[in-house]
Parts: sequence; C-alpha cells; structure tokens
Amino acid sequence: MTIKVGVIGGGQLARMMIGPAIELGLDLRVLAETTDSSARDRATAVGDFRDLDTVVRFAQDVDVITFDHEHMPADILVALEKTGVAVRPSSAALAVAHDKIVMRRILDELGHPVPVWAVAESVTDVTGFLEAHGGRIIAKLPRGGYDGKGVAVVTDASQVTEWLDRGPVLLEEAVDFSRELAQLVARRPSGETVVWPAVETTQANGVCAEVILPAPTDDGRLIDVAAELGRQIANDLNVTGVLAVELFETADGRLLVNELAMRPHNSGHVTIEGSVTAQFEQHLRAICDMPLGSTDSRHPWAVMVNVFGAMDLGRYSRLTQYGDVKLHNYGKEPRAGRKVGHVTATGTVAADTASRARAVAEIFHTDI
Amino acid sequence: MTIKVGVIGGGQLARMMIGPAIELGLDLRVLAETTDSSARDRATAVGDFRDLDTVVRFAQDVDVITFDHEHMPADILVALEKTGVAVRPSSAALAVAHDKIVMRRILDELGHPVPVWAVAESVTDVTGFLEAHGGRIIAKLPRGGYDGKGVAVVTDASQVTEWLDRGPVLLEEAVDFSRELAQLVARRPSGETVVWPAVETTQANGVCAEVILPAPTDDGRLIDVAAELGRQIANDLNVTGVLAVELFETADGRLLVNELAMRPHNSGHVTIEGSVTAQFEQHLRAICDMPLGSTDSRHPWAVMVNVFGAMDLGRYSRLTQYGDVKLHNYGKEPRAGRKVGHVTATGTVAADTASRARAVAEIFHTDI
Repeated sequence: MTIKVGVIGGGQLARMMIGPAIELGLDLRVLAETTDSSARDRATAVGDFRDLDTVVRFAQDVDVITFDHEHMPADILVALEKTGVAVRPSSAALAVAHDKIVMRRILDELGHPVPVWAVAESVTDVTGFLEAHGGRIIAKLPRGGYDGKGVAVVTDASQVTEWLDRGPVLLEEAVDFSRELAQLVARRPSGETVVWPAVETTQANGVCAEVILPAPTDDGRLIDVAAELGRQIANDLNVTGVLAVELFETADGRLLVNELAMRPHNSGHVTIEGSVTAQFEQHLRAICDMPLGSTDSRHPWAVMVNVFGAMDLGRYSRLTQYGDVKLHNYGKEPRAGRKVGHVTATGTVAADTASRARAVAEIFHTDI
Repeated sequence: MTIKVGVIGGGQLARMMIGPAIELGLDLRVLAETTDSSARDRATAVGDFRDLDTVVRFAQDVDVITFDHEHMPADILVALEKTGVAVRPSSAALAVAHDKIVMRRILDELGHPVPVWAVAESVTDVTGFLEAHGGRIIAKLPRGGYDGKGVAVVTDASQVTEWLDRGPVLLEEAVDFSRELAQLVARRPSGETVVWPAVETTQANGVCAEVILPAPTDDGRLIDVAAELGRQIANDLNVTGVLAVELFETADGRLLVNELAMRPHNSGHVTIEGSVTAQFEQHLRAICDMPLGSTDSRHPWAVMVNVFGAMDLGRYSRLTQYGDVKLHNYGKEPRAGRKVGHVTATGTVAADTASRARAVAEIFHTDI
C-alpha cells in the first residue's frame, strides 16, 4: 500500500522531494526532461511534458500527480484529470497561477489586494496606461515567464510591441514597494491549511537571491496579515500542495500580491533547516492528503542564499569555518547565471546568520 | 568530478544516506542484499557481500567504499583495499569493531575504561569467571551479534557450551549500571574529529528502543567526559566516518565502554532533527574527507523512538495531533519485532518531547 507519487518535471524542486519521500515511505517517480535532469535519480521516465501520450503513460501507474514547474499546457492537465488520476494542484487551480492575466482578474474579483493592472492588446492601450501611471509601468507576458523572464519595466510603449504581436500583455503600476515578502502555505484536499511565517526575499536582476525566515519586522501584525492572506488565497483557489504568494510591502505599509506559485518555491527552501517541516515534505504530505506537519521554526533566524553558476565539490574543502551552513547541490552542469544550488545558515542573530550564508555562497561564486 | 560513494549493504542506514547524498551532490551507489532492500532506490548492484568477486566488481567504479552493517568478512575488506579503492573505515579499524574480543583487548591496552573481561575457551574458564564475579556474568559471541543477539546473561556455565563449540567466548562482569549512554563521533581522514553531545539510550529486550539527545544530567562534566572518551577512541583506532561508542554509566558515576560501531548507529538517528548536522550527512562528509558539519543541537531536547513490526501509511491519518513529530519509514515488509522505522520529536521540555514521540510510535505499534 505504498503511495506512488508522480512528479512532472525533473528540476531541483523534484530533486529536493526525493529525500523527504524516502523518509515518508512514498514511491516517488519523476518524468524528467532529460537523462541528466537535476532529479535524475528518480527519473522513471524521460520525455516531453507537452506530449499528451508521454504524460498519460507516465501517470498510468501512479496514485497522484504533481509538478516541478508551471509550464504544463492547460489542455494536457485537463486530459490528465479525465484519466482519473489525482492531479494536485488541480487544473482549475493551476489555471489561475499559469496565466498572469487570469490571476490578476480572479484575485481582484475575490477582493485580494493587487497592484493596479490592465490588459493591453495594442500600443495605444500601453500608452494610455503609461500616461495614467507616471510614465513608468511593469509589463508581463501572461505565460511562460520565470526568474524575471517575461517581465519588463516599461517607459515607452515601443518596448512592448514584440510581446503584443504574440497576444495580450498584462500591465501593472510600478509599485512603490519597500521590500518583497513571500507567504508560504500548504493545503490538503480535506481542507487543512497551514502557514509558515512570511519570509523576506531579495531579488538580484529579477531572480531570487536571498531569503530570510521570518521576515524581520517590528510590526507584529505583518506576519499575521500575510498569513491570513495566504490562507485565504489557498482556500479561495482550492489549492492542494504548497502555494507561494509573492508579496510587495508598500512604502505605506500595505501588502499587495505580486505572483502565485502552486508548488514548492525558491522562497521556501529556507524551511528545510529553518522549520520543523520543510516545504518539500509538506508538499508531499499535502498532495497525499496526509496530516500536515508543524510550520514552527527550529531557529530564531534562517537565511538562504542561492548559488549561481557552479557549485563544485572541489570548493567544499574551503568550508572549514562554516560547519553550520548547509549545502544543497542541484547536480547541474555549470552555466553563467544558472541556479545550481543554495546554502542555508541558521542562528540567533539575523545579521550574523545572513553574513555566514552569503560567505559560503561567495565561496562557490564563479564567473563562467 | 562528482564523488561516487559505494555503500555495502542495503539496510536503513544506507537508505538514510540517500537524502543527504543528494543534497551534497554525491553519487551514492548501494550493493544491496536483495531487490527489495530498504535502500533499494539506490541499489546499483544486488549480491552477496561475502563474495569477493561481487564486492570487487561493485567497488570498481566508485571512489570510496563504506558500510551499512558490520558483517563484512575481514579477508574481503583486506582484498578490497588491495584494489586501491578507499575503504572507510579501514579494514584495520573495522577489525577492532567486528571482533568483541579484539575490541576488549585493544581498548584495555589503550587504557580506556571497559568492564572486567576474560576469554573463555572451556567450561572450566566460564565456571572460574562466574565464581570470581558473583555467579552472574555476561557472555558474548565475538562476532556476528547485533540487536541483543549473541549476548547472554549467564548464571551457569552450561548455558555457554554450544557457543564454546564454535570457538572462544568473551566473558564480562555484569556491570551495575544506572543507565546506558552513547557517544557519537565523526572523524575524517585528515584527522578532524567532531562529537555530538552524548545521548541516553533505553533498550527493550536488548534492542535500542528510545534515545534522548542530550543525555539528561545534572553533572556538566558527564557530557565532556563522554565526548573526550569518544574522541580519543576515534583517534586511537584511526576511525574514518561515524563511530558510535555505547557506554554504561555505573551506579558510582564511571563510564565504561560497552560496544563500538563504526558506522551511523541507531543511537544517532535522533541527530536528523536534533542536530545541525545529522549523522548520515556527517558520515558522508567524513568518508569523502570534506570539512565536518556542526554538531550543535537545533532544539533543547530531541527524542527518538523506534517503530517495530509495521509502519504502514494507513496509520498516517491518525497523526493529526502530532505535526511536530517526524517519521522515518524504512520501507520494510512488516514482521514481528522488526525495526521498520523510527519517529523523532523535538521540544523544550524533555518529558513532553518524549511522550509525544512515544505516542506516535504507539500509533504504529502492531502485534503481528
């Protein structure tokens, strides 16, 4: 009566589910893109996730399907559900996360706080929105973006013409935010929902670089407001599994929803050491409809820093002064700017904890 | 330049190395006994570890060999080293742990505290030792014992005749101990040695049932004395990897060495949640000669309780009140008395932490 969990996509998120799946006694299977995918150790199939036959064949012998990324075509998700396998999160929930215009529309309808937004179908639309919002706005491709790709700061409508040729473009006010936060939530089909304390995230070139758990704040309500917002969105959208709600904290103290991700998320890697239950274990428990684990913190502070470029074992010998910093190597070939791993430090003083994590990430830093 | 680590033996110790190996970026390979061994996910070979050809073939394509159990024949270990592969711990170190008579002799020569002991080759020897030690002694088979097997309380020499037919038997005074402790140590080839705080272990029917980290004590020196003893033994015996030193604490406050195990050990499972660096990650770092990780505790108390018999997923639904207790399922078929998993609770009050771990273990308890 082992539960068979199928993960579509063989990236680092699938990879980091392997350890927890073993400890829980689940049979984890991965449909990987290539034989050298990050999660290759559990790749029971290699193929194209955009090919219906490949996906249906992979799903035939598993009890529940989940995802390593958000690039699944909607029609494949719907067809998959028709085969009778449990798809978690569901195609209906994922439809909201996968299209940024749908996401904005639905969050707005539900009354959740979002930046001012509009859909542009023409240069005239863009020009109008630019004039109404101070001549500097954000444009987003509705689909397929990640790690800053498909997002642009726009000051002239001509910057968006190429995107408009491909279809409608989401426009948003350039939010005057003081910092970015993320609220991680987990929800199981029977409805139980748990939240971790909100984290502060720091981006570099549009890519998550650093995460602090919990988000430093003097305002005790901030953590509660973010938690309640995350919990409501997970319930409203009927999410199963982990949901990451990326948030802007505005200069005037409001929280606005930036993005949603219905899967374990870079902002949650810090929970591996920082929390009693890591997001990867929790995602598996949630999609298998097991009771969820405690989201209490194990340490006053935990800081995660991404490693870009290369994370080679040869550098490990330089880590003698950092025995408390934990390494997560994604098993990827080196490439400039590529997320190849992350490190996490835990401690009782936020600044010291952060500097130790940064120092280790710097040891791995390579300009390729 | 991925390091390939070969583990001989596919039990739960090899299984619990899989997650840490992935995160460190190591290529873990297991020579398993059967295709349904606990560590089957990484079984790249299935065969008999007592067959030289099988072992040498497995070792051909790895950088370092280590072990899931202590049943390796000495001649195979020596032959393996001759092939040039790094064997960690070495055959010389393992020779001390694998034969209890050798272990007693060498620890005694090194001046480490051990129970009064003798080697019996005849019934007369046993009778003499019985008379000298109050008519109640411990007899041990020198090799092959585990989990209480090969150990007997002896009040009459006739109890040992069958063992004597097979060769010399180790005799020990029945130590008047107040409790049992274990000292976990890790040492890398370059000599760096780290110790975790000593734990208290509770046996049931000769099998480890429960472990508390750290060992409760009002005497601050106890932890230091145990740590120094563990560190010295690891250095004296030139151990690489994790060493568990099982200890008796006597009624008059002394520590005596009971057993040695040169591998991750049941008494160290509690470090997975309880410590910054778990014994499985540390063993891998040590045998790969990487800098060792911090052995600081993440929580004031951590308590591990073994699960015997069956640990089926169907029971997981009963765990709603125990979100802080972590499960480790060994993926084994149910069998009466078999160690099939363990659970660990962490907290700030020892008694409460222990009762929560026990409650979850009890949920899984099955009389088969």
